[in-house]
Parts: sequence; structure tokens; C-alpha cells
Amino acid sequence: MADMERTGTSKFRVLGIDPGLHITGYAAVDFGSGQPVIVEAGALRTSVDADMPDRIRQLFDDLTEILAELKPDMVAVEQLYAHYKHPRTAILMGHARGVIMLACQQIGLAIRNMPATNVKKSLTGNGHASKLQMQRAIQMVFKLSELPNPPDVADAMAIALCAGRHATDK
Amino acid sequence: MADMERTGTSKFRVLGIDPGLHITGYAAVDFGSGQPVIVEAGALRTSVDADMPDRIRQLFDDLTEILAELKPDMVAVEQLYAHYKHPRTAILMGHARGVIMLACQQIGLAIRNMPATNVKKSLTGNGHASKLQMQRAIQMVFKLSELPNPPDVADAMAIALCAGRHATDK
Repeated sequence: MADMERTGTSKFRVLGIDPGLHITGYAAVDFGSGQPVIVEAGALRTSVDADMPDRIRQLFDDLTEILAELKPDMVAVEQLYAHYKHPRTAILMGHARGVIMLACQQIGLAIRNMPATNVKKSLTGNGHASKLQMQRAIQMVFKLSELPNPPDVADAMAIALCAGRHATDK
Repeated sequence: MADMERTGTSKFRVLGIDPGLHITGYAAVDFGSGQPVIVEAGALRTSVDADMPDRIRQLFDDLTEILAELKPDMVAVEQLYAHYKHPRTAILMGHARGVIMLACQQIGLAIRNMPATNVKKSLTGNGHASKLQMQRAIQMVFKLSELPNPPDVADAMAIALCAGRHATDK
């Protein structure tokens, strides 16, 4: 927990990322003495009309900016599955995940892979929870007035929460 | 053909890339007044023992160096398939392809996607040619004394050849 030593506060900031070429959800969650707190969350989008290299570059630049602004102590990214229903979507996700990892690695950030089934099970008790179930669980945990949307943002919050709990034993 | 105008020579250089996380084949081929000529070809490798972010970074840095050194006029990369026998390998390839595209986009290089079946058909007459058939066809076309190895390098040569022929109408 480098941040604790550096600032004298007890905050440990985890940036959760749900990678995708069209939408990448992200959520920065602070772990301190009390309950985990969402600092900022949102979705990075690339245009389906743009060329692939331009979309890749857009995502890389946007994430690089987010990292510089939010200065997380750790990044947690959804782990690869072994099997996918939609291979093409999975491969496009691979492109996004590649440049996300590069953006983090270039500034020396630790990256933790979080298997989706573990994250879902930890939040809902069901490793195959639906998107809506995840959104509802996250809304309850963080006491949000609205359902977090799009689902990619809720997933990023869940990923940050699980990774942070694991890293800080909370 | 920016290079023609820039240097007064008739060379147009295409860098063919066969992307992979473990091995990425590359080949720079010059198209001029005579037969296409291989300028340089090789394989960029990352260690299977290294962490994913480190492998991604290694590939990105190695390719960035190759691009700066060989200064291609165009890059051609193997196109995505819609279906794969090995989804996990395909997703890892996606990671590699993402950072390859980023490296090219960052220096403003045009990227052409080449469908593997078109490349194979153009070289061997068979869109589903084996690796060895491709290696033999490439050996003949470029009159190489040895079979190009690993197959990823032969594939990169084939990708460069097809993309360059298309771009220069040769």
C-alpha cells in the first residue's frame, strides 16, 4: 500500500476495468478505514464507424489520461475466459485488453486479473449472475441512488471492489 | 506511394506482420521496377514465462523499433477470422494485434488487413494451404536457398507480398 506511506492517509485506490472495444467500463474505488468509496466511474467509448487502429488509439489515449488523473495504486482487469459464445467479440475485446495492459505497464502499475465468475459469485452468490443482477448488487453495496449504467460500469465497480477487498483484506 | 516522391526511387516498402503473442512474424518487402525483394524478415518473440503485461510491452517496444528502423510505407496485418478452433489463442492474438495496431497508428502508418484465406489462395491456389505449403511457395517466389522459418515469418512474407502487389498493381 504505497499510497498509505506516501500520503499518511489510509487510502488504497483500485481502478477496476471491464475491457471492450466499443465500451470499456472503469471505476476508481478507494479503500480506507471505513466502507469502500467510489471516487469516479464511467465508460470509455469508441465509434463503431471509426477504423480499428483509430479506435484502439482512442481507447489507449483515453485510458492513459484516466490513469494520470486518478493515479490508482492498482489496476484490476477482467480475466480472460477459456470459452466464449461470440469469438469475434472476444477477439476484439482482446485488442482492447492489449492496449489497456500496455497503458498500465508503461507507467509501472500493478495489474490484477479478476475472473468474472469469481467477481459475480462474490457480489451475488452466483458465478453466472446476469448483468441486471450485478447492477442491483453494486447499487446496494455502494448505496447508489440509481442503477449504475451501462452494465460495463457496474462490472468495473465490482471488479475494483473484489480486487481491493482481496488486496486490503477487507 | 509517398516513398517514390520523397526519394526519387521507385521503391515502395511493405511490412507484413503475422501477429501472435508468443511469435510475431514480420517481413519488409520492397516493390520497385523489378521483382519484389525481401529487405529484412524475422520473428519477434516474447517469453511464455513472463507476465502478460510485460509480454505486451516487449512486443510493442520491439515492433516500434522495427518500424523506426525499416520505415515501411505501409503495414499489412493478417485479418481477423470470424471463427477459430482455439478461442484462447485467438484472444491472445487479439492482445498482440491491438498493440501492433497502436504502434503503427502512433506514427501515422496506413494499415491494411489481409484475410489469411486470400493470401493463401494467391500464393498456392488453395485458401486452406498448410504452413509447409506456404513456406514452400514463399521459398519459390523469392528464390530463397532455405525454407523460411518459423512459418510465421513465411506468413509475414506472404502478407507483405499480397498487400504490396495489390497496392502497386504488380
